[in-house]
Amino acid sequence: MNKYWSRRLDGIEGYTPGEQPQIPGLIKLNTNENPYDPSPKALAALASAATADMRLYPDPDVHALRDVLAETHGLAPDQIFVGNGSDEVLAFSFLAFFDAGRPLLFPDITYSFYPVYGDFFGIDYERVPLDADFQVPVSRFCRASGGVIFPNPNAPTGIALPLVDVERIVAADPDRVVIVDEAYVDFGADSAVGLIRRYPNVLVIQTLSKYRALAGLRLGWAMGDRGLVEALACVKNCINSYTIDRAAQAAAAAAVSDRAYYEETAQKIIATRERTAAALRSLNVHVLPSSANFLFAAPPDGRGEEVFQKLRERKILVRYFQKPRISRFLRITIGTDQEMDVLLTALKEILESPR
Amino acid sequence: MNKYWSRRLDGIEGYTPGEQPQIPGLIKLNTNENPYDPSPKALAALASAATADMRLYPDPDVHALRDVLAETHGLAPDQIFVGNGSDEVLAFSFLAFFDAGRPLLFPDITYSFYPVYGDFFGIDYERVPLDADFQVPVSRFCRASGGVIFPNPNAPTGIALPLVDVERIVAADPDRVVIVDEAYVDFGADSAVGLIRRYPNVLVIQTLSKYRALAGLRLGWAMGDRGLVEALACVKNCINSYTIDRAAQAAAAAAVSDRAYYEETAQKIIATRERTAAALRSLNVHVLPSSANFLFAAPPDGRGEEVFQKLRERKILVRYFQKPRISRFLRITIGTDQEMDVLLTALKEILESPR
Repeated sequence: MNKYWSRRLDGIEGYTPGEQPQIPGLIKLNTNENPYDPSPKALAALASAATADMRLYPDPDVHALRDVLAETHGLAPDQIFVGNGSDEVLAFSFLAFFDAGRPLLFPDITYSFYPVYGDFFGIDYERVPLDADFQVPVSRFCRASGGVIFPNPNAPTGIALPLVDVERIVAADPDRVVIVDEAYVDFGADSAVGLIRRYPNVLVIQTLSKYRALAGLRLGWAMGDRGLVEALACVKNCINSYTIDRAAQAAAAAAVSDRAYYEETAQKIIATRERTAAALRSLNVHVLPSSANFLFAAPPDGRGEEVFQKLRERKILVRYFQKPRISRFLRITIGTDQEMDVLLTALKEILESPR
Repeated sequence: MNKYWSRRLDGIEGYTPGEQPQIPGLIKLNTNENPYDPSPKALAALASAATADMRLYPDPDVHALRDVLAETHGLAPDQIFVGNGSDEVLAFSFLAFFDAGRPLLFPDITYSFYPVYGDFFGIDYERVPLDADFQVPVSRFCRASGGVIFPNPNAPTGIALPLVDVERIVAADPDRVVIVDEAYVDFGADSAVGLIRRYPNVLVIQTLSKYRALAGLRLGWAMGDRGLVEALACVKNCINSYTIDRAAQAAAAAAVSDRAYYEETAQKIIATRERTAAALRSLNVHVLPSSANFLFAAPPDGRGEEVFQKLRERKILVRYFQKPRISRFLRITIGTDQEMDVLLTALKEILESPR
């Protein structure tokens, strides 16, 4: 901080993403990347975009990709907004829909970027505690408020909220925007996209980073009523007109079109998740029920942080949050079966050895 | 605008980028794209990035590219911030360095995104009129203020400010940040990068979109003292941790490294610009002295808007701004020699025919 910094940076701490270390042989289970390759059609489209046309600006309104997304989700193209990763879409959504004054509600245990957006943009918010078993207390989100945002499935717990409960929250106060952050929805939760037709106040955000194995491409999108999508476009055009490069537009359209490929890889990840959860439970690890591509798991005897460190020494990287209520837990991305076997063997050895 | 929109969108109008129409046979001289291909090495790097590694997040801090940029500019990597196009870097800079209160100064005729950032982020600003011949009135930027931003060369005039004048503005008030937006600097102006060593309050912003013929890739960067770069990183980490995808990071590094290629294409563009300016003047068009890859040119007898429309009917697209002081002018991107010949022939015919 120095004298040149604006006042809005006073006391602000940005979000800290999971580490991206360059360690040879690392088993990387810390940022919920997909262990399987992206769709070959997406990679082919990316490579094919390397032409002389890169000298030209991309389509600022991303029409071709929005057409593909619209068809995939049974929506109209003008119900879709595309951004440079779902984090950008989230940031633009905070700017588009939330203000100082009546607080925005989100769970106390949730994606840790939400309070960063709130602090940085001067939006008041209130953390609503999850139940003792980390379930969303639905009725506490049904009171009138400045807005609601939550991930479904939640992160880092992995627990999904049934669609009927999502709808209760959306319907409870039609004067506020409810954002359902569905980064992990395709690993076993029910999407709220079907609510868009009936509720002009629900915004659903998805991403290419997890299910579609394209975290390296940076692409996310929001779906909702035209009135909400127009607000997001207005925010974009106040910050950066051309947010999505030509190559990403082409690769994303190919990825979203290749449904069969991703359905198959997701089934593999779900099978590995269930097998891993059972194996962890047999080691007396407390595992929350996950509908995502990760497990939130507490080793016995409060040894979470110790296990995190000892796994790291063995070049197995998981995510650990030194935060209230969850400091016993590790967030473990579902890797390949082979990677999970290495993890389970290491974990068994660590837990069998004294502290 | 509907009831869900935040108060910060009240009365806000976003920036309108130049058209990107899909018209077969169009001669597109409206958004200052480079008429020559990007570096073949950059395109090869882009294609080579289409691997399974796209499933992994990119380096959020863009180290490899920052190393290349640092070497190119004679700076340290921590003096460089990279963003998703220089528009994003500009937006983040407004958030990082400027506040409500003492006004930010910029020219009255300048890049039209600056007032949009100011309005949207609640930053007070004051437009300082250019002289009658569209020169920057240097002394009027030397009084103390909340900050200064200007393009050099200026847009849409194309007129460059000598480095000694840039330094006067930077040195005049060491307590404010001065941003020099050098999108077009490589077509004939002097860069302010050399001032960074001596002035902790100067920030220089460049882009791949013009000189490096990669408008389709979305990449820009800021250069300045570490204290300024840290503020930009803080803003980024409050909005979007991973702004630059893997493919863009790789392609950009290759482009920046391929200096010889771009020096040659820039020389061609400069030669075409000078030839075109002379030809326009011979048609009684008033042409401002340009150090950019475009010409700002006023057809005789105030026929600017008419000529814009008639060129468009002939599938030649230039940029026209219906704005005070410049409504007589057209901004004409320098294309290939062949494209400029078509333009000149059309212009001659239009000017020789009655209105």
